[in-house]
Amino acid sequence: MTAPGGTDLRSCLVVGTGLIGTSVALALRRSGVSVHLRDRDPLAVRRAADLGAGEPSEPQGRVDVAVVAVSPSATARVVTDLLDGGVAATVMDTAGVKAEIVDDVRRLSSAPSRFVGTHPMAGRERSGPGAARADLFEGRPWVVESGAEPPARRQAEALVALCGGVPVAMSADEHDVAVALVSHVPQVAATLVAARLADGRADALALAGQGVRDVTRVAASDADLWVDVLVANAEPVARLLTDLGADLDAAVTALHALAADPGGSRRALRDLLVRGNAGRARLPGKHGAPPTPYVVVPVVVADRPGELARLLADAGAAGVNVEDIRIEHSPGQPVGLVELSVSPGVDEQLTAALTGLGWVVHR
Amino acid sequence: MTAPGGTDLRSCLVVGTGLIGTSVALALRRSGVSVHLRDRDPLAVRRAADLGAGEPSEPQGRVDVAVVAVSPSATARVVTDLLDGGVAATVMDTAGVKAEIVDDVRRLSSAPSRFVGTHPMAGRERSGPGAARADLFEGRPWVVESGAEPPARRQAEALVALCGGVPVAMSADEHDVAVALVSHVPQVAATLVAARLADGRADALALAGQGVRDVTRVAASDADLWVDVLVANAEPVARLLTDLGADLDAAVTALHALAADPGGSRRALRDLLVRGNAGRARLPGKHGAPPTPYVVVPVVVADRPGELARLLADAGAAGVNVEDIRIEHSPGQPVGLVELSVSPGVDEQLTAALTGLGWVVHR
Repeated sequence: MTAPGGTDLRSCLVVGTGLIGTSVALALRRSGVSVHLRDRDPLAVRRAADLGAGEPSEPQGRVDVAVVAVSPSATARVVTDLLDGGVAATVMDTAGVKAEIVDDVRRLSSAPSRFVGTHPMAGRERSGPGAARADLFEGRPWVVESGAEPPARRQAEALVALCGGVPVAMSADEHDVAVALVSHVPQVAATLVAARLADGRADALALAGQGVRDVTRVAASDADLWVDVLVANAEPVARLLTDLGADLDAAVTALHALAADPGGSRRALRDLLVRGNAGRARLPGKHGAPPTPYVVVPVVVADRPGELARLLADAGAAGVNVEDIRIEHSPGQPVGLVELSVSPGVDEQLTAALTGLGWVVHR
Repeated sequence: MTAPGGTDLRSCLVVGTGLIGTSVALALRRSGVSVHLRDRDPLAVRRAADLGAGEPSEPQGRVDVAVVAVSPSATARVVTDLLDGGVAATVMDTAGVKAEIVDDVRRLSSAPSRFVGTHPMAGRERSGPGAARADLFEGRPWVVESGAEPPARRQAEALVALCGGVPVAMSADEHDVAVALVSHVPQVAATLVAARLADGRADALALAGQGVRDVTRVAASDADLWVDVLVANAEPVARLLTDLGADLDAAVTALHALAADPGGSRRALRDLLVRGNAGRARLPGKHGAPPTPYVVVPVVVADRPGELARLLADAGAAGVNVEDIRIEHSPGQPVGLVELSVSPGVDEQLTAALTGLGWVVHR
């Protein structure tokens, strides 16, 4: 078949049939691409093939693309073997960190021009071929390294489009700085706050509300996985954490200097909080659109099956599209506060409709 | 009337008719308590009275309790005036920071034994009497300072119970350390991460997913309000931030030392991440119960009115109680991934039921 962008993408070898590799294979099969599967674990290949991801055998002759979806530390070696063996016209990887891998491949391989580094911004809490989905990449950004040769880039972009992803061109260094900023540093910050909770008194933790829950949610992530990620992206992460530490030190200094210089201390704290406001406001909103200032309509809901459905059915009957939901957990009470986020302007309509139907709306 | 605990609570003066004061007044009126309202802003008193919160006039004779709900910086002075004027048998405040206020009152007042410091762990994004609710405190922890005299404490606990809150006994210092831990330090950490985003490239921010959104949500909070909070609780916050900074420095050192001592660096990073796992696991779950490891069932839902309601109706019809919901936003796609959290064991049942009804469930 002719893929988006006019490139040929008829055959593919997927190396590494975990969550990402098997999801790529399933997505390509959906478009009729011939897919071969390879993994050092024969069971993983078998499971992926059973799910309809492709053939558990080596391709006869050269394929159009090889997709490498193995651990970051094994990626450069696997990519180099594929390039030098002439197995595929184009070889792309999918590891979450790029600069080191791209450098290693360009240094080790005799045919580096046929390689393109990529990173799909998709994942799940579960791993392995059993967790794979043909639509895992649907609408998600997928970084394609801009330093690669145009033919290899075009082929990667075509594959991303077939998988439903949104290709994003970035250099390897830009990518690594970007994921340090929007993923790795937030992870470390969440961990640093959660580590304080490990030493806190139980009665103190009983006062916790939704704020600290949100800040620390990702601190529950797998420790070994995150050691690998942080080690592979050490320099950009260390640089951003150093900047963060300078702001932290300034905040502590301001708190200590309150007696001596209350005005200066308050200004320093306010400057930091205002910069935080500005940064938060820059995060893209739903579907990659500019952030929309939704209005929150809080409703009291009993904690039993069907209540939430009844609430949302009543909201839907009022013609209101609920953009987001948050459930506030209260200690010691069999009721919860459900916060419905809606577009400005329809909140009055929703409140009136729900109140009319007997819901207790907090306005 | 005889309030819970056998104390008399027939009359109350609320000083400060903002969100908290007016909500207390509404809750007490619900139980038939006679409530008088005072605020330096006559319009705020009028609005609270119009909402049914009580009389916009001074009480005739001494009331059983005066509740002070003014800004933290004004609280000690207002409390002292009430105590020394003999306006109420018991005076309680509601400020979010306790030690400084309790110290000031004990130093300034001639009748400090009739004062008890308290802090309801409830609030809203909106402020003012118009945002008040009789059920604002329903099921929420409400700290009652344990260093106060028993009669004053009993009276405060009775009022908390009438408001539907859950009294939690703590010393003023314990309270301040607790809120530093579960509220003020998470706020600063979220701000520190968000401040990095203020300097980030737009194409980097476009890669943001749910993790960084959660970590930085509270960084959108009002900067001036938070300057006041941090200043009023400077010492406990500075101490915890210093501990956090030490862990941060150790992480940066480990990242820099990777080449020289990879084993030691990896161990240091892993230790921190594991401590974060442990701290996060200590946060109480829904309704103050021990944290339950819910199972997440992700479902693809079209972004149009009624779809979420239909999904939850189908879940309810399957007899499944949805414990929490998260909506995953995908850029550039009119579909979203809705994650339903359910108790372990019922996830298979829910998945089977939803799949049978045509939903795409990501398992």
